[in-house]
Amino acid sequence: MFSSYDVIVVGAGHAGCEAASAAATMGSKVLLITMNMQTIAQMSCNPAMGGVAKGQIVREVDALGGLSGIISDKSMIQFRMLNRSKGPAMWSPRCQSDRHVFASEWRKALEENRNIDFWQDTVNEVLVKDGHITGVKTSLGVDFFAKAVVLTNGTFLNGRMFIGEKIFGGGRTAERAATGLTEQLITLGFESGRMKTGTPPRVDGRSLNYDLMEEQLGDEKPGKFSYTNTPALTKQRSCWITYTNQAVHDELKKGFEKSPMFTGRIKGLGPRYCPSVEDKINRFADKDRHQIFVEPEGWDTVEVYVNGFSTSLPETVQYDALRKIPGFENIRMFRPGYAVEYDFFPPTQLKPTLETQLVKNLFFAGQINGTTGYEEAACQGLMAGINAHRNVNEEAEFTIKRSEGYIGVLIDDLITKGTEEPYRMFTSRAEYRTLLRQDNADLRLTEKGYAIGLASQQRYEMMVTKRSGIAQLTEAIRLAKVKPEEINDWLEAKGSSPLREKNSLYTLLKRPEIDQSDVKELLSFLPDMPGVGEETLEQTVIEIKYEDYLNREKQNAEKLDKWESLSINPTFDYDRLKALSFEGKEKLKRLRPATIGQASRISGVSPSDVSILLVYMGR
Amino acid sequence: MFSSYDVIVVGAGHAGCEAASAAATMGSKVLLITMNMQTIAQMSCNPAMGGVAKGQIVREVDALGGLSGIISDKSMIQFRMLNRSKGPAMWSPRCQSDRHVFASEWRKALEENRNIDFWQDTVNEVLVKDGHITGVKTSLGVDFFAKAVVLTNGTFLNGRMFIGEKIFGGGRTAERAATGLTEQLITLGFESGRMKTGTPPRVDGRSLNYDLMEEQLGDEKPGKFSYTNTPALTKQRSCWITYTNQAVHDELKKGFEKSPMFTGRIKGLGPRYCPSVEDKINRFADKDRHQIFVEPEGWDTVEVYVNGFSTSLPETVQYDALRKIPGFENIRMFRPGYAVEYDFFPPTQLKPTLETQLVKNLFFAGQINGTTGYEEAACQGLMAGINAHRNVNEEAEFTIKRSEGYIGVLIDDLITKGTEEPYRMFTSRAEYRTLLRQDNADLRLTEKGYAIGLASQQRYEMMVTKRSGIAQLTEAIRLAKVKPEEINDWLEAKGSSPLREKNSLYTLLKRPEIDQSDVKELLSFLPDMPGVGEETLEQTVIEIKYEDYLNREKQNAEKLDKWESLSINPTFDYDRLKALSFEGKEKLKRLRPATIGQASRISGVSPSDVSILLVYMGR
Repeated sequence: MFSSYDVIVVGAGHAGCEAASAAATMGSKVLLITMNMQTIAQMSCNPAMGGVAKGQIVREVDALGGLSGIISDKSMIQFRMLNRSKGPAMWSPRCQSDRHVFASEWRKALEENRNIDFWQDTVNEVLVKDGHITGVKTSLGVDFFAKAVVLTNGTFLNGRMFIGEKIFGGGRTAERAATGLTEQLITLGFESGRMKTGTPPRVDGRSLNYDLMEEQLGDEKPGKFSYTNTPALTKQRSCWITYTNQAVHDELKKGFEKSPMFTGRIKGLGPRYCPSVEDKINRFADKDRHQIFVEPEGWDTVEVYVNGFSTSLPETVQYDALRKIPGFENIRMFRPGYAVEYDFFPPTQLKPTLETQLVKNLFFAGQINGTTGYEEAACQGLMAGINAHRNVNEEAEFTIKRSEGYIGVLIDDLITKGTEEPYRMFTSRAEYRTLLRQDNADLRLTEKGYAIGLASQQRYEMMVTKRSGIAQLTEAIRLAKVKPEEINDWLEAKGSSPLREKNSLYTLLKRPEIDQSDVKELLSFLPDMPGVGEETLEQTVIEIKYEDYLNREKQNAEKLDKWESLSINPTFDYDRLKALSFEGKEKLKRLRPATIGQASRISGVSPSDVSILLVYMGR
Repeated sequence: MFSSYDVIVVGAGHAGCEAASAAATMGSKVLLITMNMQTIAQMSCNPAMGGVAKGQIVREVDALGGLSGIISDKSMIQFRMLNRSKGPAMWSPRCQSDRHVFASEWRKALEENRNIDFWQDTVNEVLVKDGHITGVKTSLGVDFFAKAVVLTNGTFLNGRMFIGEKIFGGGRTAERAATGLTEQLITLGFESGRMKTGTPPRVDGRSLNYDLMEEQLGDEKPGKFSYTNTPALTKQRSCWITYTNQAVHDELKKGFEKSPMFTGRIKGLGPRYCPSVEDKINRFADKDRHQIFVEPEGWDTVEVYVNGFSTSLPETVQYDALRKIPGFENIRMFRPGYAVEYDFFPPTQLKPTLETQLVKNLFFAGQINGTTGYEEAACQGLMAGINAHRNVNEEAEFTIKRSEGYIGVLIDDLITKGTEEPYRMFTSRAEYRTLLRQDNADLRLTEKGYAIGLASQQRYEMMVTKRSGIAQLTEAIRLAKVKPEEINDWLEAKGSSPLREKNSLYTLLKRPEIDQSDVKELLSFLPDMPGVGEETLEQTVIEIKYEDYLNREKQNAEKLDKWESLSINPTFDYDRLKALSFEGKEKLKRLRPATIGQASRISGVSPSDVSILLVYMGR
């Protein structure tokens, strides 16, 4: 029944929403199938977007014409640029979101796209003919036909939730799991595996004693994710920081014998970098405390998310342990934490477009590919949606190189290395990370997004204006000379050595003691400087200030290529290299790669681990 | 674990929310247990509150200090006073709601009450000791203790959903059913039964052709539900009306052989007055069309609720039939309609407080008692919450007489007559309906609500001000005389006969051709009239204008009592009484009551049916 579509998207989480929006914006007739229209774009885990490396991804999605940045801007209750004290490659935007508003803004945005239809149902089967996708079959027994299908099933495929010794079928609390689809994909020749993730308890903010915690304010001048003119926050809500302690750990340990993690009931591997609290105290037995972020769930609600306390221990253990945390003495829990185990499909079965190798025009995006994280899901959805549309229209594949964006790094990692545990993005995964900054995602990607008909004309023009502003400003700074008598008082005030002779602003800008915040003042010495926006200024300064560093990084990356085939002794003692990352060392000891190239492709061995190996081996 | 409570409320729909709010406002420590905190106060069926008799209930809930009126006012997108052309007893407020805002306003209101804790879980068992409730056990295995428990399980107890030949376990789409509780209550001695209800498909408003429908605007001067100073709407969204036709009916009939209603797969009885569309065309085969109300789901969404088209026919049949409705030619469906069957407990097992007869301090409210409708659920929740609190504090039971409110009628009907099918309120069920108007619920009930500590001081004072305003105005109108020369021009303009001599305003007000809207003008002839609010004026006019009628009704009601024991011939031919209601006649023929009193207590035999019997039997 019903019409047939260009693209069907299954699932309406971060991946599914971006996929549907991208394909539809580019002109495809899209059907978005979700199990429950009331829970479109529900944030299943923490009420936040962005963070280290993840914030960069959101900005890349935005630069290409995706919606995650705009929706995040509209629903945020706090914004912070993380790592401001480090180099600009590490600056990472992060926001707290209003969980409710985030979901409703996504739904509104999808509804406003006339190319998107909706259908509430569960997909149990993909329809395949001669190796080509032809549609899907739902649990109502309806066949929907399409030229391409994007699966974004999240944690719902044979989802099982664990709290202590109790197990519930389902992908999320009180929501049913999706069955049948994994089994069918296996009959088509796909390999599948199990992964697990978890979520912390949520508690009643009215029962917390914030006097015993550290307040974490939003930025004084809050930024935002989108390069478009979404408004910035004018008021913000604070988060709070507290810590576990030995008493908390002791309470948690009482539950270990009932932990589904430790008793082997959970088979899937969990995200290493977002471990459960029981994992943390088990693996890092020497640490006597762990940080807890107390995050409000929205503008109006008293519900609070206990970030850092993900757990599947019995709810009574969760409660007893929480009460030992400073500020949590009189805690009231709303919902216990739980773990969820689900099917995924090792992503080495995918092409660089996220199309499956086995079935033409079938795409996978998000947790189904073994990733974790909203941002990782969103960017995969975007890329799958774009390529589904392009395949349908017999256009060339659309990919992003590792040197162009985190999105490129993520997809290349997935399809070439695969992943044994939920894959999360880090800045260390990107060998070109100094180039892949949050401030320049528009300059890197908007033209590409515009060329394929996703980024709007307006967005493209904003980028062009910024780009030419940077060029003009850079040129002006290069040419501008200041005289000692004009500037020496100012330099002295900044603790910077005075000029002896006329010098260029360009050179002054490179002085390490001149920081971002001084630059505006410095520029006031140049009355003829072109008027530019805040972002153009920031961008220009970064490019000038870190010019040499950026160039060095490019050379490093080129060198790395050359060492690809250098061999490693099979009995090499990795423990001697203290600087190796914990995960990298563990993986190298286990897998014992034969060459540096092979080592570099192991999931968990970072580019800096490879550099350390190279240094040790005398290159 | 956790603290123990005064009152535990299970379920957070209309009944559960009112129960929790009432008990907590009166001072009980309340735990509200819901399967999913994201779906608190979800409107499962149509996005609307109020309507004939139901609107009166919402105003009664508000007058007592419940929140349904205030929440409805905050979330409405359209308001209409139904039946304005009839007598004021029939005037019924009704609004379209923004489904999303309604739920979030309820959640906000509950969170603002510091006496309410929340817990996300499913209750599988009530804990009972020596015939007293002591708490509940959840599916996580947690025992929560309390002095009183209110069960408001809605359609979730062993819920099964039907679409065509397909059956899904669950209480609502993609949400799990609650199992175990019914079975346990049966072991405690409770009787249970099955009922069913249904919901229509929801469609894409962008695919409708409104040119082929009739627009249904909101009232020009929109009213509201609450007697407090909630703001009235300043803009509204329209609804639309269209009709089924023979072609629609023919399409629907094609699915009858797969209908779970007609093949016997659904055992429970559905709501007679909110029948599925297949039921309508089956039962009223002579009607060639049925009205369809096309209702927007909120301010911003394109989703539309097809009121009047409730169905559990296969989704393809739903689609094919919808397409034959004028304006629906290019319809896109979002979600198919479905039927849901669930357990209920015949309410004859309850006391007038909604406490169960079997277990001390265990209360039932809402669909678990065999009722249908948001408003019916809300008022039961309110009464159960009040009485749970009062039992815990060893205070006298709180009930409302049939002559005091629809709430009294509803509960008295339930506990004395029981119900075989989902019970819905009608004005005809209330023998004192002329007294139980939407305009005077505050005068009838706020003092009672205030006396028990539920209605606020402020609410009470507003009512007192209104009451004394009415008394003053009535007295002034009684005393005011107008001279012919002052008023005859005006009377002539209204088509009303001129005065020959000085007469009282009081008498003029009773003239049928002088309607509500003229009264303000009429009062301008009295410069000394006390200044009063809109509501006080309306109230006063109704009381004066219908004074004789209201008195007659009271006498009728008294008479009815006398005829209680009058006997009816067991072979009486009810078909001879054409004026009997369809349902009343059916029930009388089947149950053959021995006396008029017995007849009057049969569910579905209305007071007017009883009057007809009395008239025939010559009294």
